[in-house]
Amino acid sequence: MNDAKTTRRTVLAGAAAAAAFGLGTGTAQAESTGLKIGILLYDGFSLLDPTGPAEVLSRLPGATVTMIAEHRGPVRTDTRDVAVMAERSVAEVSRLDVLLVPGAGNRGTVAAMENQVLLDWIRRVHRHTTWTTSVCTGSLILGAAGLLRDRATTYWASADYLEKTFGVRYVAERYVQVGKVVTAAGVSAGIDLAFHLASLLAGERIARGIQLAVEYDPRPPFDSGDAAKASPELKALALKLLAESQE
Amino acid sequence: MNDAKTTRRTVLAGAAAAAAFGLGTGTAQAESTGLKIGILLYDGFSLLDPTGPAEVLSRLPGATVTMIAEHRGPVRTDTRDVAVMAERSVAEVSRLDVLLVPGAGNRGTVAAMENQVLLDWIRRVHRHTTWTTSVCTGSLILGAAGLLRDRATTYWASADYLEKTFGVRYVAERYVQVGKVVTAAGVSAGIDLAFHLASLLAGERIARGIQLAVEYDPRPPFDSGDAAKASPELKALALKLLAESQE
Repeated sequence: MNDAKTTRRTVLAGAAAAAAFGLGTGTAQAESTGLKIGILLYDGFSLLDPTGPAEVLSRLPGATVTMIAEHRGPVRTDTRDVAVMAERSVAEVSRLDVLLVPGAGNRGTVAAMENQVLLDWIRRVHRHTTWTTSVCTGSLILGAAGLLRDRATTYWASADYLEKTFGVRYVAERYVQVGKVVTAAGVSAGIDLAFHLASLLAGERIARGIQLAVEYDPRPPFDSGDAAKASPELKALALKLLAESQE
Repeated sequence: MNDAKTTRRTVLAGAAAAAAFGLGTGTAQAESTGLKIGILLYDGFSLLDPTGPAEVLSRLPGATVTMIAEHRGPVRTDTRDVAVMAERSVAEVSRLDVLLVPGAGNRGTVAAMENQVLLDWIRRVHRHTTWTTSVCTGSLILGAAGLLRDRATTYWASADYLEKTFGVRYVAERYVQVGKVVTAAGVSAGIDLAFHLASLLAGERIARGIQLAVEYDPRPPFDSGDAAKASPELKALALKLLAESQE
């Protein structure tokens, strides 16, 4: 049954088909520009916030995605289960085409909002970015850096905090673009944001190609992801699960 | 405008609401059982395959998610952009309630399929799991370990390889359950799989709570994620982008 050992080892069909179609991806130009995408990690970040967008954006022709933190080394998630390596410290990075700030639980978000090294770095990098972006409570960190204007989105349970603290209007969309600042809603919304960014950076054709490349045809088995339709009980349960997973 | 410094630092509203509703999450029982979820990392894995499910499953009451690899330490993705820490070596882990094997590009998948240390470990752990699961080409690794029967899913471009090599029928669903083996389609399908697993492990109520906790209400800006509806040109472009991002 298992003749894997003797089968010619190309497990992905049609890898040569692109040549047959004479497809270009614009790589040459992208590589010459060398699209630099940086994602800021900090203690207690939520795992999917940076990794969802990184999966998508690392497929852009010529792009590099770099995980950055105050210091190089492993950075642990809110649940403490997983650590992702920061490959560069903020001191080593001064220019990015795209900056993405992920969200975190309460503790991680607050610590980042009070970390002047991170806030100064975000402001400095923001001056030259093409897009400055956030996922989940990452928008609160952009707010603490003074970068929010007019409208933004964030994690559903942080909407009131966003409006009261930064004087911007919360918009319940997957992502909200104001000037060059694009904020995304909670956690998984970073994936939708990433496809929007992919189309802005490389055009809709490439964005669609990446969508198929990562088979992003979501079909959740349940329909409970929208806070606007959730009961008070489900909201309370969600926040309880979130809090307990972070203890 | 920014009074963040003086605002009382609870950025998530309603965190105390759970107590008001008298909600239980079944934590006491789950903690006594200590649900152990292990994700196998190997060189060249695709970033979202393990991290999407880890985000969801780490919110299960009492659960721990552990990244495991042949050796402890950072394990790098297919694009080489990102490294996730393996916290345990396979030699350190003999029992898991849930095993998840992520997918990779061609090179990483083939190397894992030929790594007898990994295959032996997967077979050994599988004997006692409640669920043995895969994302993307991870199902080919389960196949190489001799664990596939009857039907399975995998990355769309590996469907022919799956059928010819392991004699199982490819099913174009987000996830396919056969006995205690649950395989998921490409990359992002691991998130849908994870909510299915969450409901199997902790019930639909908890799964729905986690869905709201990570605001999983996907709204892709494009509709190109389904290979069954994709043109030959788009398929070729997707595979070209995938291949070039791994160079």
